[in-house]
Amino acid sequence: MTNKDARTPVSSQTNISNQANGVFAASQGKKPEEEQKSIGWHKAYVGGSRPDLRVPVRQVHLTNGQSVTLYDTSGPYTDPSLDTDVRRGLPPLRENWILARGDTEEYPGRPVRPEDDGIKHTSPRGGLRNLDAVFPGRPRQPRRSRDGKAVTQLAYARRGEITPEMEFVALRENVLPEVVREEIAAGRAVLPANVNHPEIEPMIIGKRFLVKVNANIGNSAVTSSIEEEVEKMTWATHWGADTVMDLSTGRNIHTTREWVLRNSPVPIGTVPLYQALEKVDGKAEELTWEIYKDTVIEQAEQGVDYMTVHAGVRLPYVPLTANRKTGIVSRGGSIMAAWCLAHHKESFLYENFEELCEILATYDVTYSLGDGLRPGSIADANDEAQFAELRTLGELNRIAKRFHVQTMIEGPGHVPMHKIKENIDLQQEICDEAPFYTLGPLTTDVAPAYDHITSGIGAAMIAWWGTAMLCYVTPKEHLGLPHRDDVKTGVITYKIAAHAADLAKGHPGAQEWDDALSDARFEFRWEDQFNLALDPDTAREFHDETLPAEPAKTAHFCSMCGPKFCSMKISQDIRREHGGSQAEIEAGMVQKSKEFAASGNRVYLPIAD
Amino acid sequence: MTNKDARTPVSSQTNISNQANGVFAASQGKKPEEEQKSIGWHKAYVGGSRPDLRVPVRQVHLTNGQSVTLYDTSGPYTDPSLDTDVRRGLPPLRENWILARGDTEEYPGRPVRPEDDGIKHTSPRGGLRNLDAVFPGRPRQPRRSRDGKAVTQLAYARRGEITPEMEFVALRENVLPEVVREEIAAGRAVLPANVNHPEIEPMIIGKRFLVKVNANIGNSAVTSSIEEEVEKMTWATHWGADTVMDLSTGRNIHTTREWVLRNSPVPIGTVPLYQALEKVDGKAEELTWEIYKDTVIEQAEQGVDYMTVHAGVRLPYVPLTANRKTGIVSRGGSIMAAWCLAHHKESFLYENFEELCEILATYDVTYSLGDGLRPGSIADANDEAQFAELRTLGELNRIAKRFHVQTMIEGPGHVPMHKIKENIDLQQEICDEAPFYTLGPLTTDVAPAYDHITSGIGAAMIAWWGTAMLCYVTPKEHLGLPHRDDVKTGVITYKIAAHAADLAKGHPGAQEWDDALSDARFEFRWEDQFNLALDPDTAREFHDETLPAEPAKTAHFCSMCGPKFCSMKISQDIRREHGGSQAEIEAGMVQKSKEFAASGNRVYLPIAD
Repeated sequence: MTNKDARTPVSSQTNISNQANGVFAASQGKKPEEEQKSIGWHKAYVGGSRPDLRVPVRQVHLTNGQSVTLYDTSGPYTDPSLDTDVRRGLPPLRENWILARGDTEEYPGRPVRPEDDGIKHTSPRGGLRNLDAVFPGRPRQPRRSRDGKAVTQLAYARRGEITPEMEFVALRENVLPEVVREEIAAGRAVLPANVNHPEIEPMIIGKRFLVKVNANIGNSAVTSSIEEEVEKMTWATHWGADTVMDLSTGRNIHTTREWVLRNSPVPIGTVPLYQALEKVDGKAEELTWEIYKDTVIEQAEQGVDYMTVHAGVRLPYVPLTANRKTGIVSRGGSIMAAWCLAHHKESFLYENFEELCEILATYDVTYSLGDGLRPGSIADANDEAQFAELRTLGELNRIAKRFHVQTMIEGPGHVPMHKIKENIDLQQEICDEAPFYTLGPLTTDVAPAYDHITSGIGAAMIAWWGTAMLCYVTPKEHLGLPHRDDVKTGVITYKIAAHAADLAKGHPGAQEWDDALSDARFEFRWEDQFNLALDPDTAREFHDETLPAEPAKTAHFCSMCGPKFCSMKISQDIRREHGGSQAEIEAGMVQKSKEFAASGNRVYLPIAD
Repeated sequence: MTNKDARTPVSSQTNISNQANGVFAASQGKKPEEEQKSIGWHKAYVGGSRPDLRVPVRQVHLTNGQSVTLYDTSGPYTDPSLDTDVRRGLPPLRENWILARGDTEEYPGRPVRPEDDGIKHTSPRGGLRNLDAVFPGRPRQPRRSRDGKAVTQLAYARRGEITPEMEFVALRENVLPEVVREEIAAGRAVLPANVNHPEIEPMIIGKRFLVKVNANIGNSAVTSSIEEEVEKMTWATHWGADTVMDLSTGRNIHTTREWVLRNSPVPIGTVPLYQALEKVDGKAEELTWEIYKDTVIEQAEQGVDYMTVHAGVRLPYVPLTANRKTGIVSRGGSIMAAWCLAHHKESFLYENFEELCEILATYDVTYSLGDGLRPGSIADANDEAQFAELRTLGELNRIAKRFHVQTMIEGPGHVPMHKIKENIDLQQEICDEAPFYTLGPLTTDVAPAYDHITSGIGAAMIAWWGTAMLCYVTPKEHLGLPHRDDVKTGVITYKIAAHAADLAKGHPGAQEWDDALSDARFEFRWEDQFNLALDPDTAREFHDETLPAEPAKTAHFCSMCGPKFCSMKISQDIRREHGGSQAEIEAGMVQKSKEFAASGNRVYLPIAD
């Protein structure tokens, strides 16, 4: 099934449906040839230096004939000219770029085992499989670096090479490719792009670029299915998620991940420790470096672009959490702490970190060095345990860089507003300006069911001060597994935080979006307001709740104040009555004021003179 | 109809229903005598220096036998021992205090005219009425200061008097009464309490106190009714609104306001200009000082506690808005600008400000000096027009203080994060630290339908930096009139912002709430988490969506991670396995670590030594 007609990335088999419905409403019912010029928005591409380098954008066409170009994370699903099919996966956009470099090779790869999907060794469903069996859409072998070749974007950047991936993100961010290369080379930005994930549209994470948003998906032992996870992924990227972390912990982890990867236009992150723990039946003390390493390779071969590694949770730091109000709240952190205490040994992740670097470098998997000791409550923010781990992450960051492994650093968590800045300042200092990737932080603990908001506040602030990527929090945080609506609410809330930060950082072009919407608002171009909104569907729905009639879409007021009290209308009336064009209005106003002043009423402030 | 049985402030006549339902769920179905000790929360009172001085609190009883005391704005409606009836109004709590001072007198008052309710002079329904006819519940005459008496809380504070109102808020805020008196006397705080609104439970607005939240209600010409507005008011205070502004602009303004006032446990604010404009059929240029003054007296006699007055919108500032992207977005501001330009005269509010001060002082109405030229878009933030008006507000603030009129200053609006601090810093400097009362600010314009969030971010920040009260924004902002759910979402979002600011300011006792909830979370006391939450209903509902069974309420995990991956559970297991009591755990952990260090692995960070 294709999305040619309905313009919705639908496959009846995987139950992905309707995610683009509302957004496309403005152009629905029109013939293809009319589409490009219709009001609303459509997918467009900005061409690069080669024919296969086309950067997707969201082009919003306004009723006044102007158009606004916005960053687009929705992938090929919103391109009506492309056939997408979740059983086949997305086209491997980067394949030629990877092949052309000639520094990687295909190899048979690690066989897929039943236990990779959480199936017991004794299960009748047992037996070895290959990747094709997991995802029949595109037969492939995994790819790795040829001996001695450094295949990470960091290595290329350090050598002075501007890869197609770098050019792609430069066009996306509207900066020079050299800026992208420099930031990556300096370790201030990462471009997560596993050689086994050619489907992604490259993106960059760094403080000089647009603030990014990650959405977590993942089934747990309690609920959820493969289909739901793939749908959640496309749903999240549809609303603006820049990366997606698959945090599945239940059955079918391997297969779920494969389907997610083959259909994802954005980088996918994971926490390999979760799957490793499944392989030892949830007994932390039975984890071994070998099992962990094997899991990392398994996931790297699938194409995971970045991995959270809790190598900073070291044995001596565990006692530092004893006085905490909420102990260790990171799943990975608590697993590693339990392992360290059970064996009374230093963390196997810390001890084998260099070998891990070698593995990640082989595939260009990016590190997301996990903050396993992040605070889980306002009371525990910025404590000894948290900052001790951060100093270790700084040490590990330097080791990773020796292996040309791209690295970002994860941050908290739960932090009251006055303690947020210390987090980013210290992280930037200790970690040589490596990108900070924070969860929230939540600025208070008293509002379960609203933690997208308690954390959106902290997220906006820490992003303004330099955090490069924000991990979203949904309304279900602390209470349950997010559903479709929760994912959307989480993504939209975090897009707000990210964009508010882009504005505050003075990111070039960020304010154009606000300005376009403000102009539409002042001029009562309701359809333009909706189409420019982060969530056009809900904006339109809210407006129509009180003023549903079609004429209201062009009315010079809304139901908030009614026609008589609309300040925007009165403002316009003032302009209309006291002048014609903008220049005339101004001249007229200034003239009137001068007359007033000349009449003896010297009431002007100095700034008006 | 009373609320004795259902514990919901219901009147079938006014259709107020169910607002307390969910919150009381925990104690529903229990007999009254069990109630006081039951899990959940109940209304309690903290006694003062006299029997009629009892400060309401929300007492949350936890399953571990402890209890937490929270600030309570819900009024007598949540007291099951009181009969409330919206046709009768709330008991006049402050009446004896006002009478005892002996500085006010009853008088016949201004007759109520049909046009006060927006009814044309020629209407067959016309004819003069008195206040009794408008609200039959409690026959009364309005009250005003006796000749020459200064009856404002500011005047009392300056004279060194600690009024019962001041003692009430001192108990509420857990500070010494002298601190309250000092802050009011210095003009750094206001205690809005019209002598004609004896029903309120006094509250204070100032940066040394808890950050307050205002909720706007009000019918517009397009929709809404008296019943809905009264219900919205009690609904808003139920969820934590500290004051309510009645911004009605349609029919029945006078009567709606009377019903709201007689049933409101919190101070009520208004914008008299809106009603004045109704009286001249919406024609701004026909407004006169006389009509405005008459409206102010009308509302003051009813008991309005604070009034927004746009006296800072002066003729010479109007041209400063000509280059703006969104002109003048304040309704009051645009009305006054239109008047100034139409007559080419200085604002009648500015010109007659001293006489207005005399009127407000007569009833102890507090000024909320409106920011009629606040920015309506990111592009217009912190511009000349805005700050020119702010300087005038500083001037007016000093005049008001000469008349002993309590005064707060309104602030924006739409401001990107990096320009927020300048607003509060400048306001505090220019306005002699008078309380700042801001709308948001919205930190981006691109998310209509989510402006409670775009503005909640800015609100939390500006409150941290010193704003004393936040005017809420609902999801319907810019799109339509808020309904019941929107009001709740707006209030909860702003309670989050206010509390996050209280935490960041280090307000004494603020963190106890977070700590209690964090403890409950770490100890898997689910019911306690719900009952301590800002919105217990939604927290419980979200949890039950995925794990509805009763045992899940005591389960040591939730559906987010499932039993195997619950970090809190692992954390607890660690503590249990490696020690007994908290002290033993710590000792054990430290001992283990010391052994580790002694073994030659000197891995400790300096801070751990």
